[in-house]
Amino acid sequence: MEWKNSLTELLQLDYPIIQAPMLGVTTPEMVAAISNEGGLGSLPVGGLPKDKTAALIRKTKELTARPFAVNLFAHAAEPVPPQQVAAMQEFLETLCAQYQIPYEKKPVETTPAHPYNDQIDVLIEENIPVVSFTFGILDDDVIRALKAKGVILIGTATSVKEGQVLEQKGIDVITGQGIEAGGHRGSFLMDEPLPKIGCLALIQQLVHHVSIPVVAAGGICDGAATRAMLVLGAKGVQIGSAFITSDESSATPSHKKAVQQAAETDTVLTRTFSGRWARAIQNTFIKAVEQSGVEIPAYPVQGNLTAPIRTAAHQLDNPEFTALWAGQASSNAEMKPAAVLFRQFIQQAAAIA
Amino acid sequence: MEWKNSLTELLQLDYPIIQAPMLGVTTPEMVAAISNEGGLGSLPVGGLPKDKTAALIRKTKELTARPFAVNLFAHAAEPVPPQQVAAMQEFLETLCAQYQIPYEKKPVETTPAHPYNDQIDVLIEENIPVVSFTFGILDDDVIRALKAKGVILIGTATSVKEGQVLEQKGIDVITGQGIEAGGHRGSFLMDEPLPKIGCLALIQQLVHHVSIPVVAAGGICDGAATRAMLVLGAKGVQIGSAFITSDESSATPSHKKAVQQAAETDTVLTRTFSGRWARAIQNTFIKAVEQSGVEIPAYPVQGNLTAPIRTAAHQLDNPEFTALWAGQASSNAEMKPAAVLFRQFIQQAAAIA
Repeated sequence: MEWKNSLTELLQLDYPIIQAPMLGVTTPEMVAAISNEGGLGSLPVGGLPKDKTAALIRKTKELTARPFAVNLFAHAAEPVPPQQVAAMQEFLETLCAQYQIPYEKKPVETTPAHPYNDQIDVLIEENIPVVSFTFGILDDDVIRALKAKGVILIGTATSVKEGQVLEQKGIDVITGQGIEAGGHRGSFLMDEPLPKIGCLALIQQLVHHVSIPVVAAGGICDGAATRAMLVLGAKGVQIGSAFITSDESSATPSHKKAVQQAAETDTVLTRTFSGRWARAIQNTFIKAVEQSGVEIPAYPVQGNLTAPIRTAAHQLDNPEFTALWAGQASSNAEMKPAAVLFRQFIQQAAAIA
Repeated sequence: MEWKNSLTELLQLDYPIIQAPMLGVTTPEMVAAISNEGGLGSLPVGGLPKDKTAALIRKTKELTARPFAVNLFAHAAEPVPPQQVAAMQEFLETLCAQYQIPYEKKPVETTPAHPYNDQIDVLIEENIPVVSFTFGILDDDVIRALKAKGVILIGTATSVKEGQVLEQKGIDVITGQGIEAGGHRGSFLMDEPLPKIGCLALIQQLVHHVSIPVVAAGGICDGAATRAMLVLGAKGVQIGSAFITSDESSATPSHKKAVQQAAETDTVLTRTFSGRWARAIQNTFIKAVEQSGVEIPAYPVQGNLTAPIRTAAHQLDNPEFTALWAGQASSNAEMKPAAVLFRQFIQQAAAIA
C-alpha cells in the first residue's frame, strides 16, 4: 500500500504513524525507536522544568537523527481555593494511611505557573522540528515564534469546534482524539460539557470541516484500525496504548499487564489523578476518591497533590494507586520492542486487501 | 470494490449494508427502498401488538420481493414499584401543564408483559428470513423455533462479552453497537455499568473474539465510514441516522432538521424517554426530567408514561418534547430518498483508493 501523503511530506516521515506522547510512560528510547522506524516519536515534556526538558530532548537526540515531536501542555492555569486543596490533602492522607501508602502533606502551590513559557526557549535552541500540544492552544506569540523558526505545530481537538479553533490559529495539523483514547482528554473549550465523541464519528466530521491534515487518535491498537482511519480520511494515526506495553515503556510491570488484560469495558473517565478528565483502568484509588465526594481541585493542582502517591505506588509496583492509563482497545497490546510493534502495524495494515 | 463477503452470502444481499430498525422513524417504505437496492432493510416491530406487526410486515412485502429483517425487543420485563410510576406521572403532568402539552394521567401497567412472545408466530407465518433483536437475547425455545425454520438471527452487542454470549447462544450475526449510535443502547448484561465503547474500539476487538460475522453500527454516516469499518474487519455496517432524514422516514420535519444541524457534541445519553439509555439531541424534555431528580421507572414503563407526550409533540411537530434520536455523526445526513442515500454510500465507498 501507499503510505506517503500530505502528512508524511509535511513531517518528513516514511509512515503517517505517530507514537502518542504519554508522560510517565514514554521514554527517549521509545521516541527514538519510532522515529528510527520512519514514524514520528513524540517526547512528552508537559509541565516539566526547563533543565529536565532539555535533558530529555538531548537524550532522545543521542538515540535518533530523525525528526521527533516534543509535546507541551497548554492548559489555562487557574487558581484553586486553598480550602479545597486542604480538604483533598486531608482525605488523601487518611486514604494512604488506610492502605499503607507513604504520604506526606506538603504545601502545594494553589496558583499554577504558566504551563510552558520556560520551555519554549529550549525547543527553539534545540531546533525541534515538530511541537505538539494538548489541553489548549499555545499563546499567539509562542505560535508566531515557533512558526518563524519553521516548526510544524500539531494541536489536539476532541470536537469539530476545537479543530476549527486550532485551524483558525494557524496550527498545521490536528490530532482528533476520540473518546476511546487512554490518558488525558485534550478538550479545551471548557465552558461546554466534555465532548465524548467516538473516534469514528469525530474523524468522519472533522475531515469535512477543516482543510489541514487530521490525525486520528483513540482506540487505534492494530494495523487494521490504522488502515481504517486512513480510509476514513485521516492523514495519519496516533497510537498510545499499544506502546504502553513496549519494552521501552516506563510503565510498571503491573500497568503493562493490566493494559493487556483490560476488557474494553474496564476503563473509566476520571478526574481523580490530576484534576483533568482522563481514561484509566478502574482501581482502588479512583473508586475511593470518587466515593468520598471530596471536591477535586482543578488541573494541575490535583496532579501535584496525588504525585507523591503515584510515585510511591510506581516504586512499589502497586496497580491500585497508580494511574493505569489505557484506551478502549488496549487488549490488543503486546509486550515487544516498540520497533517490532511498529513494524507489525505496517505489515497488518498492508496485508488488508 | 468487491462488496460480496460471508455476510452478503448469508443474507443474500448485493451490499453488506443494513438499514437500522428505528421504531417511530422507519417505515415499510424505507425498509423496502433499502432492500430493493440490494441492502438489508430492517422493520422495527419492538413492543408492537401482533396485528400491527403483521400489518407492517404485509405492507413491506407489498413494496419489495427481496429479503428484509424484522427487529424485536428482547428485554427483561421487570415489575416497577407503583409509587415510582405515580411520582413520575405527577411530575409529567405538571411539566406538560407548564408547556401546554396535552397530558392525561392514565393507569399504566407496572408489570410489563413478555416483550415478543405474541409476535413469533407472525414472523414464522410470514416466512421472515432474518430476525434481528436488541436489549437482550431471545429465549432458547424461540431461538430453536426460528432456526428450525431457517431464519437467520442477528443480535446486538455493546461489548465483547455481550458478543460472546450471543455467539454461545447460536446467534448467526452480531451487530456491534458503538457508543456513537443514535437511539437506544442494546446493552443487556445489566449487572455491569453501561458499556460506552467507541465503534472503532469495539469492532476492532469484537472481530478477534467471535468467529461469526460482525456488523459495525454507531456513527457510520457516509461511504468512507462504511469502507473504513469493512477494512477494520466488520463484514457489514448498520446505518441509522443517515436514514432519519430520508424521504421515507416518519420523523417530524423538526426532527430531520435537528439531525442535520446537530453538532457531534449535541447529543446526550438519556433514560428520560423510555427508561433505557438512548442517544438523542438535548432538548427541554430531557433537561426537565433530569433536573427534577424524579426517579425514572425502568423500560418499558417509562416509555409508556411518556408515550402520550411524544405522540402529542409529534403531531405538533414540537422538537422540545419528542425524542430527537440521533447519532454522533448525524450532521452528514441529507434529505433525499433512501435509495439515493444508499447509492451515495456505495459510490463514496467505491471511490476510495
